[in-house]
Amino acid sequence: MSAMKVGVIGIGNMGRSHALQLDKGLIDGATLTAVCGRKDQIEWVKNNMTGEVQCFEDEEAFFNESRIEAVIIATPHYSHPELAIKAFAKGINVLLEKPAGVYTKNVLEMNEAAASSGKVFGMMYNQRTNPLYQKLRELIQSGELGEIKRTNWIVTDWYRSQSYYDSSRWRATWKGEGGGVLLNQAPHQLDLWQWTTGLMPKRVHAFSRYGKYHDIEVEDDVTAYVEYENGATGVFIASTGEAPGTNRFEIVGDRGKMVIENEELTFYRLTQSEREFNASYTGGFGEPECWKIDIPVKGENSGHRGIIQNWTDAIVKGTPLLAPGEEGIKGLEMTNAIYLSSWLNQTIEWPIDADLYYEKLQEKINQSTIEKKNGSNMT
Amino acid sequence: MSAMKVGVIGIGNMGRSHALQLDKGLIDGATLTAVCGRKDQIEWVKNNMTGEVQCFEDEEAFFNESRIEAVIIATPHYSHPELAIKAFAKGINVLLEKPAGVYTKNVLEMNEAAASSGKVFGMMYNQRTNPLYQKLRELIQSGELGEIKRTNWIVTDWYRSQSYYDSSRWRATWKGEGGGVLLNQAPHQLDLWQWTTGLMPKRVHAFSRYGKYHDIEVEDDVTAYVEYENGATGVFIASTGEAPGTNRFEIVGDRGKMVIENEELTFYRLTQSEREFNASYTGGFGEPECWKIDIPVKGENSGHRGIIQNWTDAIVKGTPLLAPGEEGIKGLEMTNAIYLSSWLNQTIEWPIDADLYYEKLQEKINQSTIEKKNGSNMT
Repeated sequence: MSAMKVGVIGIGNMGRSHALQLDKGLIDGATLTAVCGRKDQIEWVKNNMTGEVQCFEDEEAFFNESRIEAVIIATPHYSHPELAIKAFAKGINVLLEKPAGVYTKNVLEMNEAAASSGKVFGMMYNQRTNPLYQKLRELIQSGELGEIKRTNWIVTDWYRSQSYYDSSRWRATWKGEGGGVLLNQAPHQLDLWQWTTGLMPKRVHAFSRYGKYHDIEVEDDVTAYVEYENGATGVFIASTGEAPGTNRFEIVGDRGKMVIENEELTFYRLTQSEREFNASYTGGFGEPECWKIDIPVKGENSGHRGIIQNWTDAIVKGTPLLAPGEEGIKGLEMTNAIYLSSWLNQTIEWPIDADLYYEKLQEKINQSTIEKKNGSNMT
Repeated sequence: MSAMKVGVIGIGNMGRSHALQLDKGLIDGATLTAVCGRKDQIEWVKNNMTGEVQCFEDEEAFFNESRIEAVIIATPHYSHPELAIKAFAKGINVLLEKPAGVYTKNVLEMNEAAASSGKVFGMMYNQRTNPLYQKLRELIQSGELGEIKRTNWIVTDWYRSQSYYDSSRWRATWKGEGGGVLLNQAPHQLDLWQWTTGLMPKRVHAFSRYGKYHDIEVEDDVTAYVEYENGATGVFIASTGEAPGTNRFEIVGDRGKMVIENEELTFYRLTQSEREFNASYTGGFGEPECWKIDIPVKGENSGHRGIIQNWTDAIVKGTPLLAPGEEGIKGLEMTNAIYLSSWLNQTIEWPIDADLYYEKLQEKINQSTIEKKNGSNMT
């Protein structure tokens, strides 16, 4: 069987990495046959690819003439849904870099286009390949933790200096990126937060600080409080202004507590359900017996390569996707809800009003006064 | 020099413990000469004290006739300010069990009475004797951590079962205790949160759940978000419904991060100020060098005995108080602000409106419909 013809559109940092994986033959069953990017990006491709790769600067030509069967989209955020929709219209399978988009309005359209195309649609949620989070998810989904009571993720280890933000004019602007730490750094955690627990919030009340640690207009510091349908509560804290950051995810359930920190998963396991203990115990002070367990976590964290391979296998062999593209909207909805809550200073309930969000985002873009030094393109 | 004559009023769990320390001669320079309590409590004193102790059931007689020089007040919360004011009026030094009171209106009056009496006024903030928090405070106050950016305290290890709440009719009612986990279990952490950092919030937005895990009318689960004058943010999470709980206090500053968890203090120390790094670094990705340091913590956690001794020494020798009584209002203001924010579903700014809080608390008391099984008195 000949290898599947894959194209990459957007040859910035991520696009280059994906193109190299394909060109080097690291993805079984797939090969790079076309790219689309700016002139300087094409130059880079010509200098660095070993295989025969068609190069396009025009995206219409890329989709119409390249004869690719599948495309990896690694362009700036705003263009994600539009390009994915174009690909699906051509019958091309899609693997989309995170985030799914900037606002849910057109991401919903993208999901519809994906569904009606019947093509394979994957999201580059490479942290889903991390065995730590896979194990956490497995334990929660199997009922080991019992009903969830509280979640807490402090993910402030996304440190960025001013020079990072200054490196490109479009960085950290409402117009260029459409958001800050939530949209650019923390989408993985926003995905894993709901993917591992199986819970989406019912409402959120959030507190975002814009340009708190940097000369930027988007948020670089966020605290969000959420409530779930079952009464559980949660807190999500993200920042690019703390060094050294923390990355600690705690999930409390009826049967104990799980904590991921320092690449380790610890399960504080009750020998009895807390709710049962509470109902039956008569001794006043006292609590259920608890065992501290270091959960062994095995397997490879295959990252981007793992996601590209899984997506290729889904197309070629029908393997189930680890990160279906349609799920990209979940993390984005949380991002949008957090922004909306911060902007309006009120609690936002699900479902999120996609039109209202789009409108408020346009206001932010129109009110922008940021003037940036000209910088090189780092992505 | 003869030992200072000390009385104890309120001979529940805590009062018994304090009376025993004095009676057993564990406090240098002080001795127990009088107690005041209910009939059954007096019975307990007669059966358990070895020294000569006058017993009173009437508080007026206790204050007027006992000739005590100093009193430890360990009665139910609501009575704290009133009894302290009576003691100061008689020229008696006071050590007050936490919390300072239930609402700040009369705690302010108590603080005024203390000041005009010139007597020594201490709070039973026994966790201030913990060398861990003393060391943390010392490091922060000395500037090791730099300007604080964020605080985060998850203190959910105050597990209580339904049988605990059922043990007394007044427990966990607005009328009987005036609050839940914040007022009864977490006052120590609310004190240490501001005592160690030296920061009081400027505003708070809080989310309290009432009787979430228990058949009670007060809160047993709270998440509070705060902002400080310098722009720092903070989160405080407390619950009596989680097993096993977490007790993790994280403080992030310009020069790194300190974490207290599992009775250990870890300092993640930057070799350079983050703000300086941010301003001068030109490399795009990158962050300041960080050293993980296990801070040695030495000294005795003398607890209640340490506080009683320090208060005795303050009266007898003029030793500075570790926990001045006037500082009790700080933790209580946070409690009141958190309740008010939750009740009104809005952000509450400092200074807290003491009259509004008092009024809203009366509403809660008047709306109470709780009917409790008759239980024994556990305090």
